[in-house]
Amino acid sequence: MAKYTGFLIDLDGTVYNGTEKIEAAVEFVSKLNEKGYPYLFLTNNSSKTPKAVADKLTAMGIVAKEEHVFTSSMATAAYVAEQKPDARVYAIGEDGLTSALAEAGLTLTDQNIEYVVMGLDRQLSYEKLAIGALAIRNGAKFIATNADVALPSERGFLPGSGSLISVLAVTTGVTPTYIGKPEAIIVDQAMEQLGSEKANTLMVGDNYQTDILAGIRAGIDSLLVLSGVTKETELEQVGEKPTFMIKSLSEWSIE
Amino acid sequence: MAKYTGFLIDLDGTVYNGTEKIEAAVEFVSKLNEKGYPYLFLTNNSSKTPKAVADKLTAMGIVAKEEHVFTSSMATAAYVAEQKPDARVYAIGEDGLTSALAEAGLTLTDQNIEYVVMGLDRQLSYEKLAIGALAIRNGAKFIATNADVALPSERGFLPGSGSLISVLAVTTGVTPTYIGKPEAIIVDQAMEQLGSEKANTLMVGDNYQTDILAGIRAGIDSLLVLSGVTKETELEQVGEKPTFMIKSLSEWSIE
Repeated sequence: MAKYTGFLIDLDGTVYNGTEKIEAAVEFVSKLNEKGYPYLFLTNNSSKTPKAVADKLTAMGIVAKEEHVFTSSMATAAYVAEQKPDARVYAIGEDGLTSALAEAGLTLTDQNIEYVVMGLDRQLSYEKLAIGALAIRNGAKFIATNADVALPSERGFLPGSGSLISVLAVTTGVTPTYIGKPEAIIVDQAMEQLGSEKANTLMVGDNYQTDILAGIRAGIDSLLVLSGVTKETELEQVGEKPTFMIKSLSEWSIE
Repeated sequence: MAKYTGFLIDLDGTVYNGTEKIEAAVEFVSKLNEKGYPYLFLTNNSSKTPKAVADKLTAMGIVAKEEHVFTSSMATAAYVAEQKPDARVYAIGEDGLTSALAEAGLTLTDQNIEYVVMGLDRQLSYEKLAIGALAIRNGAKFIATNADVALPSERGFLPGSGSLISVLAVTTGVTPTYIGKPEAIIVDQAMEQLGSEKANTLMVGDNYQTDILAGIRAGIDSLLVLSGVTKETELEQVGEKPTFMIKSLSEWSIE
């Protein structure tokens, strides 16, 4: 499949399952490196910095530097900076979000807010929500890193960004612009970062509802790998199929 | 209108507007006292104790003791205690909620949770939401004091209970049982507390969408007073009209 010269690769369910690496993915990434094909790990995780993600991958033996990681927070920061380079942003989120916004040259503030940007925030407070709600009612644009409603943990499914973000959406009546998968925005931003053209970029992931739909919406080819959440039988129900479907990344040949 | 011998009276917009009392309401309540008609102030406010509400009313010259106040938290506590007298309840809310639950004989706990009860909580934290979400996913019943999405304040409209509650609803996919107006439950619980029959009870309020709908749903007569949010012209759009509509409570004669 020499057609593809740029790869966007999902993490959980594709490269690892929780804390366990998927061997076929390690080899897949290693081959991309041998051949010199550029790739980005594309994650809806908004709370981690790219360095924290790269460190986890490196510890699993996967070739990953900071510049191989593209989070929903980074896509959000790039999106806002494109709209207004010096925007005044009120951020409700963790380190991964605030550092991405600052690195994109945006001004983090709680005064004269032009954008309210929200992601997962495990230090959430009523006051943060109050500031965000007042700003949105006052005309600030409302941007959300990702819509995932649940966050897997060893305790079970905890509230995800999408559920926290619903507070501001419900109280103001304003639906945010979502950036993460399955939206096209994160894929468009990643391709720009990668310097890759639509026709030559492949979206690789295990989740039809996020990874594959994001690829479809962005107008690029997609590869569903059955190592995670989506089962083969579920595909019978969906409208648009992934371009390719395989059981394991070991089936995919990189020339 | 000697037919009515029990009165359920809304507060904000009916008895006062913000911090300003409505003179006609003060006289109305005073006449109820003269004639010896029982009444309850019915409020969706879940955060205040009945004492705090009565103190505010007393300071305005309105005859109000603790036993004249019925909050959405008290209705919620009564509702849960009716379902299971010794229920193990995890409460996300303020003083008005936790004290009502404790006074109803329920056990407040974060272990082996049978009911997750949520209202306005300005000390909200991610950990509280996590405990609530895990319990609901584990089969605990999910009860919400009221669905109001916005909370008026001198800063503007802040997030109301309904918007905070949406975190748990969205992350678990479980819709809570709402207790406050416009639900019938709070009206049913208030009539029980008042010892008043449906045929002889009048719901008095300024808000069609909460007060009057609650009366209609509970199957009692209702009196809309145009001293607050609902305007006369809005009534042309609604299906079921209030039983009575007046400009000021001074127009209502108590015999």
